[in-house]
Amino acid sequence: MASAALPEISKPKIVEGPGGYVLEDVPHLTDYIPDLPTYPNPLQDNPAYSVVKQYFVHVDDSVPQKVVVHKDDPKGIHFRRAGARQKVYFHSDDVHACIVTCGGLCPGLNTVVREIVCGLHHMYGVKKVLGIDGGYKGFYAKNTELDPEGGYKGFYAKNTVYLNPKVVNDIHKRGGTILGTSRGGHDTLKIVDSIQDRGINQVYIIGGDGTQRGAALIFEEIRRRGLKVSVAGIPKTIDNDIPVIDKSFGFDTAVEEAQRAINAAHVESESFENCIGLVKLMGRYSGFIAMYATLASRDVDCCLIPESPFYLEGPGGLFEYIEKRLKEDGHMVIVIAEGAGQELLSQSIQSTTDASGNKLLQDIGLWISQSIKDHFSKQKMPINLKYIDPTYMIRAVPSNASDNVYCTLLAQSAVHGAMAGYTGFTSGLVNGRHTYIPFNRIIEKQNKVVITDRMWARLLSSTNQPSFLRPSTNLFSNENGSQKSLDKKVTH
Amino acid sequence: MASAALPEISKPKIVEGPGGYVLEDVPHLTDYIPDLPTYPNPLQDNPAYSVVKQYFVHVDDSVPQKVVVHKDDPKGIHFRRAGARQKVYFHSDDVHACIVTCGGLCPGLNTVVREIVCGLHHMYGVKKVLGIDGGYKGFYAKNTELDPEGGYKGFYAKNTVYLNPKVVNDIHKRGGTILGTSRGGHDTLKIVDSIQDRGINQVYIIGGDGTQRGAALIFEEIRRRGLKVSVAGIPKTIDNDIPVIDKSFGFDTAVEEAQRAINAAHVESESFENCIGLVKLMGRYSGFIAMYATLASRDVDCCLIPESPFYLEGPGGLFEYIEKRLKEDGHMVIVIAEGAGQELLSQSIQSTTDASGNKLLQDIGLWISQSIKDHFSKQKMPINLKYIDPTYMIRAVPSNASDNVYCTLLAQSAVHGAMAGYTGFTSGLVNGRHTYIPFNRIIEKQNKVVITDRMWARLLSSTNQPSFLRPSTNLFSNENGSQKSLDKKVTH
Amino acid sequence: MASAALPEISKPKIVEGPGGYVLEDVPHLTDYIPDLPTYPNPLQDNPAYSVVKQYFVHVDDSVPQKVVVHKDDPKGIHFRRAGARQKVYFHSDDVHACIVTCGGLCPGLNTVVREIVCGLHHMYGVKKVLGIDGGYKGFYAKNTELDPEGGYKGFYAKNTVYLNPKVVNDIHKRGGTILGTSRGGHDTLKIVDSIQDRGINQVYIIGGDGTQRGAALIFEEIRRRGLKVSVAGIPKTIDNDIPVIDKSFGFDTAVEEAQRAINAAHVESESFENCIGLVKLMGRYSGFIAMYATLASRDVDCCLIPESPFYLEGPGGLFEYIEKRLKEDGHMVIVIAEGAGQELLSQSIQSTTDASGNKLLQDIGLWISQSIKDHFSKQKMPINLKYIDPTYMIRAVPSNASDNVYCTLLAQSAVHGAMAGYTGFTSGLVNGRHTYIPFNRIIEKQNKVVITDRMWARLLSSTNQPSFLRPSTNLFSNENGSQKSLDKKVTH
Amino acid sequence: MASAALPEISKPKIVEGPGGYVLEDVPHLTDYIPDLPTYPNPLQDNPAYSVVKQYFVHVDDSVPQKVVVHKDDPKGIHFRRAGARQKVYFHSDDVHACIVTCGGLCPGLNTVVREIVCGLHHMYGVKKVLGIDGGYKGFYAKNTELDPEGGYKGFYAKNTVYLNPKVVNDIHKRGGTILGTSRGGHDTLKIVDSIQDRGINQVYIIGGDGTQRGAALIFEEIRRRGLKVSVAGIPKTIDNDIPVIDKSFGFDTAVEEAQRAINAAHVESESFENCIGLVKLMGRYSGFIAMYATLASRDVDCCLIPESPFYLEGPGGLFEYIEKRLKEDGHMVIVIAEGAGQELLSQSIQSTTDASGNKLLQDIGLWISQSIKDHFSKQKMPINLKYIDPTYMIRAVPSNASDNVYCTLLAQSAVHGAMAGYTGFTSGLVNGRHTYIPFNRIIEKQNKVVITDRMWARLLSSTNQPSFLRPSTNLFSNENGSQKSLDKKVTH
Repeated sequence: MASAALPEISKPKIVEGPGGYVLEDVPHLTDYIPDLPTYPNPLQDNPAYSVVKQYFVHVDDSVPQKVVVHKDDPKGIHFRRAGARQKVYFHSDDVHACIVTCGGLCPGLNTVVREIVCGLHHMYGVKKVLGIDGGYKGFYAKNTELDPEGGYKGFYAKNTVYLNPKVVNDIHKRGGTILGTSRGGHDTLKIVDSIQDRGINQVYIIGGDGTQRGAALIFEEIRRRGLKVSVAGIPKTIDNDIPVIDKSFGFDTAVEEAQRAINAAHVESESFENCIGLVKLMGRYSGFIAMYATLASRDVDCCLIPESPFYLEGPGGLFEYIEKRLKEDGHMVIVIAEGAGQELLSQSIQSTTDASGNKLLQDIGLWISQSIKDHFSKQKMPINLKYIDPTYMIRAVPSNASDNVYCTLLAQSAVHGAMAGYTGFTSGLVNGRHTYIPFNRIIEKQNKVVITDRMWARLLSSTNQPSFLRPSTNLFSNENGSQKSLDKKVTH
Repeated sequence: MASAALPEISKPKIVEGPGGYVLEDVPHLTDYIPDLPTYPNPLQDNPAYSVVKQYFVHVDDSVPQKVVVHKDDPKGIHFRRAGARQKVYFHSDDVHACIVTCGGLCPGLNTVVREIVCGLHHMYGVKKVLGIDGGYKGFYAKNTELDPEGGYKGFYAKNTVYLNPKVVNDIHKRGGTILGTSRGGHDTLKIVDSIQDRGINQVYIIGGDGTQRGAALIFEEIRRRGLKVSVAGIPKTIDNDIPVIDKSFGFDTAVEEAQRAINAAHVESESFENCIGLVKLMGRYSGFIAMYATLASRDVDCCLIPESPFYLEGPGGLFEYIEKRLKEDGHMVIVIAEGAGQELLSQSIQSTTDASGNKLLQDIGLWISQSIKDHFSKQKMPINLKYIDPTYMIRAVPSNASDNVYCTLLAQSAVHGAMAGYTGFTSGLVNGRHTYIPFNRIIEKQNKVVITDRMWARLLSSTNQPSFLRPSTNLFSNENGSQKSLDKKVTH
Repeated sequence: MASAALPEISKPKIVEGPGGYVLEDVPHLTDYIPDLPTYPNPLQDNPAYSVVKQYFVHVDDSVPQKVVVHKDDPKGIHFRRAGARQKVYFHSDDVHACIVTCGGLCPGLNTVVREIVCGLHHMYGVKKVLGIDGGYKGFYAKNTELDPEGGYKGFYAKNTVYLNPKVVNDIHKRGGTILGTSRGGHDTLKIVDSIQDRGINQVYIIGGDGTQRGAALIFEEIRRRGLKVSVAGIPKTIDNDIPVIDKSFGFDTAVEEAQRAINAAHVESESFENCIGLVKLMGRYSGFIAMYATLASRDVDCCLIPESPFYLEGPGGLFEYIEKRLKEDGHMVIVIAEGAGQELLSQSIQSTTDASGNKLLQDIGLWISQSIKDHFSKQKMPINLKYIDPTYMIRAVPSNASDNVYCTLLAQSAVHGAMAGYTGFTSGLVNGRHTYIPFNRIIEKQNKVVITDRMWARLLSSTNQPSFLRPSTNLFSNENGSQKSLDKKVTH
Repeated sequence: MASAALPEISKPKIVEGPGGYVLEDVPHLTDYIPDLPTYPNPLQDNPAYSVVKQYFVHVDDSVPQKVVVHKDDPKGIHFRRAGARQKVYFHSDDVHACIVTCGGLCPGLNTVVREIVCGLHHMYGVKKVLGIDGGYKGFYAKNTELDPEGGYKGFYAKNTVYLNPKVVNDIHKRGGTILGTSRGGHDTLKIVDSIQDRGINQVYIIGGDGTQRGAALIFEEIRRRGLKVSVAGIPKTIDNDIPVIDKSFGFDTAVEEAQRAINAAHVESESFENCIGLVKLMGRYSGFIAMYATLASRDVDCCLIPESPFYLEGPGGLFEYIEKRLKEDGHMVIVIAEGAGQELLSQSIQSTTDASGNKLLQDIGLWISQSIKDHFSKQKMPINLKYIDPTYMIRAVPSNASDNVYCTLLAQSAVHGAMAGYTGFTSGLVNGRHTYIPFNRIIEKQNKVVITDRMWARLLSSTNQPSFLRPSTNLFSNENGSQKSLDKKVTH
């Protein structure tokens, strides 16, 4: 991700208004390139849109970040509403767009790619849309070999593919990404060189927080070079760990698919004596999939997530709870997010030495399966443990209808934004409205399950699992003190 | 729906604040019963919630209805935020709740029933929850026959069933409603008599706009009689035609399931020459399912909804468009909402006389299939038409994971509200937050697709279908005038 | 289907052996073209097959038609086993194959097409495989327009497409047929002209009994002209109404998909009072889908099929049974095959006159729905009827795994047979083994549910429905007589 | 499985007939209890069956094991056809049946349980059907505690449950087994004691080859004691590794579900560079699921099964093939049966020492994943490997429609057989017909994929994988000799 000469980060664009109104605006090409010509939005001539005359978003439309308010609250932070503008900063014939998908798979990637291509083509008449192959490094890898028959396709055709509505017509019904993807491989300067050399002027970057951080660097370098290139990010994270936005695309589909694994664990556990069905779900830093899948299923007895540390031994620990459940019901279902219990795992790994076994043990699902088996084996209590890791089976499905619509609108918003000259922005849903969010807000931290919030309380209530808060680590050691901090928090 | 002596409608509770802040509050038992005792919320002793001390909703929390704002806009209308309160107005042992499901099936009904029962039981320790059988008329039908063995179950046990967490444990995995349902059958006075006789003090009513209208009447009659009975509505409409709320439960599942029918129509149409795949979807007054299913699928060439009148013959008409598509592509897919084209239908029916055939023709799907066949038969253009009506196959599926979570929270919100003494309210999602909405706002009009809004424009753009606006019926006959009205609208 | 000059039908090839052994053999090119050269099977050089030296089918391998036998029974009728032969009658470079799909959709069509193409290509190195577009008439329709750029593609390229493994790679995951299909359009002489003109020497015909009848005529005409052209049929009928073979491809998938409709009917019927869920399934002349779907579901109270006539009014009739069920259970599910009750329908249609309504009423599902409603309306017994017609949603799905494997083997068998010089045969599964069956056996009659056989008894036992045999129409009025006819049947 | 005093094995019942006809008959209660009374089959009074007078199976009906025959072949081995008999050896009121499910989960277990209960109840009027809890050991575990309220339920009520049609009504829609299951726990004498003490006279045992072996011992002990108890086995093995029968129930569903995992592996592998999607499927000793899932999917590049040993290093090895595929296509999918490569695994495990890691490595899927990663890491060739183990997600699904029908008929056959006094038999499908097979034929060996047979050749041909036969281990070192042995084999 790092680049030798990191570009200076441009200052956030803050617009203030009466009543405490704050707009965290996104950059615009005119911020650093004065006197850019504008063009009427070609949608005005599109029969579909010409009827719908309210189509264009008003320049002042904004969406508040916070929608639980008290009557005296200041208006607070807002984001710019996404959508088509009356004027655009690119002539359709001049647009040369590219799309890249980075990081792990997520349902909906192909839908986003499809709709950027179709949106540019059908709404704006843009014909040149390049698919970058295999993530960030597809921008520059193999680019020393020239394509002798290049012509229109230029020098870099080897690892890129031109996209049009026909090529992408059915891809939303397939999982994965037709462009290919990879992790890492971000070299800001080489990427911007490649963009500049190819004459690309709209860059659509689909990826998670690391990818969006890379997109921010690309934007800064482009701004530094003064290029008329719009950089639009579309946040992709199956874990839903990107802040500000309501949810990330593919999350809904992932929670749906996770039900299959939980159902299987439930059926297995009920059919054997003292049986534990254990399901590992995605969530390296955030337990949203595990939490929502648990809430949707109602068959889970224990949900372990990265945000809520737990311990195994002793009173209030996991082993005690498992024993209790098995003695009462004869079976139980545990859901664990892949990032849960990492501190337990790292302690354990350090204390052993063998290489190849350890590699496997670094998987929390396998490690905790083994720990549970070892514990009850020592206890002479025979148990059955059925471990299910549905990760790739979840990631690789096509997006469901809800995610399909969501991806469509995200992609169209990104296209409208780039055509309107906005840059350095992420297209995202905020309180149900599509907005443009500056990169810095997306990458400054991760979205996490707040375990002192009511969603997690609902989960605890539905599973009846222990809170895993040891007396000494209780969040609120002093009852009065805690009550005070509570009052404070609630009034904000 | 009508009742001989309609109760007087109580006045809306409006609270105003600075900056144009308006809270459209919901009624409370204390509005008409002074000096009600309160109790500490039993959740304070629940281990799941005691850790999460921020759990209780602040009394001033509210959610704005409008979230696309300009910096100078007044704060506008807000609704009360849903959630648990520090104090409740019912002692758990005194609660006698009942649940009724009314109207057509909708995915998620069983989940809502399950979570009201489990929420009352697990969160508040409430043991007496009655399921009313077969919709509103279950309150009073057959109630002349006494159950001689009555005991605890009381006089009305014949057509009711007591519910507990064990009974409802797996029902969310089944479609339909375990309580049974029916249309109509609303007799306000008899229902309130029944509630009073049985000693019920919390009434949970799950149903569409007609049902919520009935719930409003029940509430008014209860208020008139001065009964300590909370009336909570949970809006159910697979068509998504209830205003104010973001979407109704089951809608997501319905759009998902509709994809199967559209896929089938697409496959059929591509396999035969000059073939039209025609799918009728739900939507008596609102075309949301048709619109979203079309947007999610991308395989639809024409989407017909009640909000957008269309015509068959002549330039710009449906027949012309079908002919064009068949000549260009050889096949097409049409989605029609059940309420579309009713004016064409009623004209046609009047001109024929036979009884039994006409009954069938009153189905727009069958009628338009026949009309298309007749037209092209007259034109001597051989076509294939494959008609699919998946209505019951969509309605009867269990809710998907997303709707399951949504139903869970809706049900819990309703329970928290009733326990907190609120009444005459509907539990609903507004801009992604759970709120309590006064009945009058839910029933005053229907939520409809706004065909001059951008969502419909997106659809038109994706299908390339004609707008079906005849020159003479153009919404904006005067270009200047329309432009003005546009400006006005956008700024609001 | 008819052709002016019908070719004379060639005599069946019967081979007899000891112990009553009879082989109903299929024609071979050498039957009418002597001295054809043979070639070693190229599979001998295929690494996959060279290891497996038992690969080739022995020339004497045959499969008995009847496998329920008594110890003294004669050996009876056998069919030739399908599979690769040591010698083939075509040099791979000389093969010019074509594939055509006819009739309605059926899951697995694309898999069969795929595997003929891949089988010819991978196993035999055949490169020229033509897809005929849109059924039989694709052979000759539009063939007056020459393709000026023809070259290799020849004169008829307009409505044909050359197929190779890459083109067909993913088609088995899609429903429908990529070749397109149509009903009728069979003109034997034109088709054989077209085959001859194009130089095609292997014809693969996928279709139902009408199509196979057409294939038989094509074969006879080819034989009459003395052409070295193998004609191989692959029986396609979602209704499973083709005799001799164990089951037709797609049938398994259809029964599986039908469960969705039955489940929906079950859920609907249980949620409303006096509710009938009515599902129409495919089966014009044979009720296999209805019968198996009923047996698989266990939720059906009445299954109506073409083979078992029923009546509505009076004792033992359908209305009486419905009334009984509704009074006892409050709900019921009826499954009706599309060809059931046609005699009732035709009586009813004659007695009414209106045109457009009648067209609809010719659908047994709509007609019987209306009849049931009318009856109970007259009886003043309020009922709910939910009618589901999933026909196109069933036909259009991709084949399931079991059908995929079946289609693969059917296609490979057909390819092996054609390469080995067999012609005028259908590839079919007999008692679990792939065989070549002479056309005449496939087309001589339809496979039907035998309502005096135990499978139908199992169904009656599981639904508890009446047998609909009026006293006067009882099959076995005389106990002795019936026993006799029984004995006859069993021994045949 | 072992028992101290193993009962003597009874001699097979062989009946010979003309033309080489051999019937391998099953035992009958009258073999060791003379003069048992018979009763008319109650089905004669069942309205469903009374119409269908051919219902009863003829006493001489048999089904040949081999159906690929030459005209001079002897008739060979036959099995007795399953089905209802005219006379039964139990009076319905006297029947006390029990059902036990043993071993791992398999789709369809609940359907079999349901249909034994419903078959006994609806067809024969049997009311007493006991479900044994948790496999074989449920017969005797915990049986020291008497149930004081015993009455009808008897002494063993603790770990058993009485079953009736209402209890089992919906269980076929659920995965797993409502009876619970376990591995091992077979103590013949204790089980027969328990059967005798409880007065059970029909024992239905559902399980795999180990379980059927146990059933054989139970039968022998019962025969030794001279008890009038019918022992009926229903073969259950998701791996399809039971000989003689066409396929085991649940196999079809398993192959279907496996497609999800293979699809996911395919999507993952295509989206990353040098990516291997690796799927482990069930199959401890037999690779049928892996083979059929591969044939159904067409996306698999390599299928590894227990029957076909493979090696990793060197020419013709797996690593070489992987490298070739990645270099050519950039991705590949491998399917491995859990029992494949065990000899590689055991060599590898012996050479390492650490305990907990090794436990994991004993899983071939994890071990081969690690081996592949290590190899290419040493080769400095960066690869991605995505490992999917869908085992429990496959086992735990409800059976599909095809398996539902199959399970229904298996269960009914078992019931008919037990009622007719047959014992020591397994109910199984042979060449598409339901038969009774003596235990010894079911347990004498395992059904395995024959890698010199054409099904495996088809697979090799479809994947293009190497045969993994090292030159030295070639089955046919001498070309001429092999040809001879081939000829011999084929003619047998």
